[in-house]
Amino acid sequence: MDTHMKRIRNKKMQELVVSPVEAASWIKDGMTLGLSGFTRAGDAKAVPMALVKRAEKEQFKVNVFTGASLGSDTDKLFTEAGIVKKRVPFQADKVMRKGINEGTLLFDDHHLSQTPEWIRSGVTEPIDFAILEAVAITEDGMLIPSTSIGNNLSFAKHAKSIIIEINTAHSAKWEGIHDLYYPGAQGERDPIPLKKVDDRIGSIGIPLDIDKVKGIVFNHQMDSESTISQPDRETEVMAENLIAFLRSEVEAGRLTNRLAPLQSGIGSQANAVLYGLLNSEFEDLEVYSEVLQDAVFDLIDAGKVRFASSASITLSNEKMDKVFNNLDNYRDKLIMRPQEISNHPEIIRRLGLISINTALEFDIYGNVNSTHVTGTKMMNGIGGSGDFARNARLAIFVTKSVAKDGDISSVVPFVSHVDHTEHDVDVLVTEYGYADLRGLAPRQRVGLIIANCAHPMYREQLWEYYYEALQRGGHTPHILEKALSWHVNLQQHGSMRKQSEKRV
Amino acid sequence: MDTHMKRIRNKKMQELVVSPVEAASWIKDGMTLGLSGFTRAGDAKAVPMALVKRAEKEQFKVNVFTGASLGSDTDKLFTEAGIVKKRVPFQADKVMRKGINEGTLLFDDHHLSQTPEWIRSGVTEPIDFAILEAVAITEDGMLIPSTSIGNNLSFAKHAKSIIIEINTAHSAKWEGIHDLYYPGAQGERDPIPLKKVDDRIGSIGIPLDIDKVKGIVFNHQMDSESTISQPDRETEVMAENLIAFLRSEVEAGRLTNRLAPLQSGIGSQANAVLYGLLNSEFEDLEVYSEVLQDAVFDLIDAGKVRFASSASITLSNEKMDKVFNNLDNYRDKLIMRPQEISNHPEIIRRLGLISINTALEFDIYGNVNSTHVTGTKMMNGIGGSGDFARNARLAIFVTKSVAKDGDISSVVPFVSHVDHTEHDVDVLVTEYGYADLRGLAPRQRVGLIIANCAHPMYREQLWEYYYEALQRGGHTPHILEKALSWHVNLQQHGSMRKQSEKRV
Repeated sequence: MDTHMKRIRNKKMQELVVSPVEAASWIKDGMTLGLSGFTRAGDAKAVPMALVKRAEKEQFKVNVFTGASLGSDTDKLFTEAGIVKKRVPFQADKVMRKGINEGTLLFDDHHLSQTPEWIRSGVTEPIDFAILEAVAITEDGMLIPSTSIGNNLSFAKHAKSIIIEINTAHSAKWEGIHDLYYPGAQGERDPIPLKKVDDRIGSIGIPLDIDKVKGIVFNHQMDSESTISQPDRETEVMAENLIAFLRSEVEAGRLTNRLAPLQSGIGSQANAVLYGLLNSEFEDLEVYSEVLQDAVFDLIDAGKVRFASSASITLSNEKMDKVFNNLDNYRDKLIMRPQEISNHPEIIRRLGLISINTALEFDIYGNVNSTHVTGTKMMNGIGGSGDFARNARLAIFVTKSVAKDGDISSVVPFVSHVDHTEHDVDVLVTEYGYADLRGLAPRQRVGLIIANCAHPMYREQLWEYYYEALQRGGHTPHILEKALSWHVNLQQHGSMRKQSEKRV
Repeated sequence: MDTHMKRIRNKKMQELVVSPVEAASWIKDGMTLGLSGFTRAGDAKAVPMALVKRAEKEQFKVNVFTGASLGSDTDKLFTEAGIVKKRVPFQADKVMRKGINEGTLLFDDHHLSQTPEWIRSGVTEPIDFAILEAVAITEDGMLIPSTSIGNNLSFAKHAKSIIIEINTAHSAKWEGIHDLYYPGAQGERDPIPLKKVDDRIGSIGIPLDIDKVKGIVFNHQMDSESTISQPDRETEVMAENLIAFLRSEVEAGRLTNRLAPLQSGIGSQANAVLYGLLNSEFEDLEVYSEVLQDAVFDLIDAGKVRFASSASITLSNEKMDKVFNNLDNYRDKLIMRPQEISNHPEIIRRLGLISINTALEFDIYGNVNSTHVTGTKMMNGIGGSGDFARNARLAIFVTKSVAKDGDISSVVPFVSHVDHTEHDVDVLVTEYGYADLRGLAPRQRVGLIIANCAHPMYREQLWEYYYEALQRGGHTPHILEKALSWHVNLQQHGSMRKQSEKRV
């Protein structure tokens, strides 16, 4: 038996090997696919590419459900091929984003913990084919996932048919790192028995209904590299500001030097902020997140993080080499879970996470926009940030105070879209400082946000808006006819700066 | 011993009886009070009134924490006396609302399940005095609450001192109806062992640290009557529309005729919608809510509801007479819990609630405003609606399609404040129909919302906005310079109707 076939330890399933082209031929126009993949990691690769190829000669459209964003340019190629009718629940591809904003494909952007509830209860389209990457299939027919779990367990349980992609580029040593737990239907389920970040509550793989497995293909292609950029001076200062806040929580007796389990969203800023912990006084840390990026492994290597749990691992090439080839070094410090469990309100609240996510913009009262540029154009989606912000011990949002060389202020009078309401946002952090909004009335938040978070070039302009609004009164003073004027200025004149000042 | 003193079965505590005036004299300027009371029910009455009296001759201010809104005009009288520095977390009084909107007192409006987390972890001001209504104190010094539990358990555990008000107007038969469960600190707590609406998981009263009980006073004053109005033709039709939606869920196989545990927010519209279930085909229903209003007891009497759980019971005078004097009839169908448990994300998600709350306005993409009139003026607060909407099986928002004789449309291009984001809102209901938004991209939601929910007199105006926005593109098309123009029109001309049309 060749080394490939050794990955399929269930004899009956060895007979199911087909080519990606054959597997792709089973997919019909109008079907709904559940693809493995979460933040570029562990995505199905061969069958999606065969599908793109098929689209060169044939017209069809499918609904594409995933865990979160895909790697391997799948979202790009699917969009270019015009084969996506609806995409659920998160994407981060430039070409697909363009399609979404032009309305050529539908995007249903919901909380990452929500998809499995909807699949289970039959709210969404039934999954016709689950296409799931694996590193192996065990003797008793259990699928061992690779670098992400995402929605794979839900897809496998509820899809009419399953196609498995054994990825031989991934080490077989991933086996034993995953922990698959499936809550029952709402109203019939037990409490999820997870009390600590490192509790193991499920099985090491996904039990398969072998009758539903229609085919197994092989691929040998490493995950796409993460696209995050390295920390810069501003994100370093943001990290310092975040640490200053956490330190003040320790001083107030609300946290210890071990802090609380950390969640950090996808992206360069959240990653950079975690790097800041390397040289902090905090130690023996735990991570309970939906995705682990480079910084977490540096923190593990430095002995700062004792344990990390996630639904996905998304790394730079350099870090992939180091981690994926030395899995035994991380085995006792790492666990991977379905995104339903990594993002579950029950667990987030019970563990009391410190949740760090990226804002696109926030307003002087603490409402956060994390999805829509000028209220209209979708960036990537809300991802897990809503799951975490609502239920965490501390919902922290980070962003640089300005963008586009200062033409965009991340602090505005009125956000152009709300993903996290004033009721859910605890702390805001920019390179200028932090604003701790807990327990404050809206009028009390304004000064903190302007003085501690806004870029100095926008502070006067923000105060001007607020003082004028204050004349009109209200719990949350606003001048409605000017509330969105900063965004209108940006659209019409290319800058949020007051036009009079810009002309000077 | 007089009948009053029989309510204090703990001998040692019988010595603690004082007058309300004396108890009120212990409260110093700058202190933080934790008052019992949730949606007018079970509020401390005698000591707050003595405090109002004291304010006639003395200047002081206190922070007032409660469960939710208070009865007995306490919020009104406190505001008029000028003794409130900060009010947390929900109120529903006209005079207090005016003070909040004028900025003469601070209002920290957060999710009702959040307050106990903040008290426990020391985020908010420490509670100097808990002032808690009770129907009795047991032999072993346990406080038996009255018609609400709210935050009483958290206040009792964390306050420096406790004052108890034994309300002899309430039947002693309340004993045995409450179920007090206290989760530990985040990161140290167990799963909450509640799996069914009628599970009993705690004690029948609040265990008191007797050393902290500084005084016990008596009062003999029934709760304030609920302020809800009776169903009218429009709310009856709204109920029919909601039932049509629920019926379609049964037909789709996602619910049975028993539905799922129901949560219904405070207020006339939510109450009226529940009344609609009286003549529906649904049966053997369960309620898991923060407050029970009249309709739930009619449903129990009619044999439609088999069991109801809540943090508070707020009724009309007529219904109070009937229910409070016949508690034995309801004993096996009723349980009362702390608001931390009635509103806990863990339980809401596990049970899969059907959550019905009232919107002030919603927009064509499904964002809901439930707190701020024209984005600035606070009504009552978010209450538990955010706890429920984010975590429920079905987050349903109801409202009449217009207000103020049609000058205000409840369906607008862009809400002036967001309390529930497009990601959290599943179904919208008005007297014109319902819009099921689940799984839809923003552009797909618009037509449903306008056609099924908006008042006919505003539909063309909404379409006009949308078509113009569509020219600009985007995942969520908007014309930012016109997005809030409906609210501006209302402020400037008294109506959201197009001014050209109004002149005709």
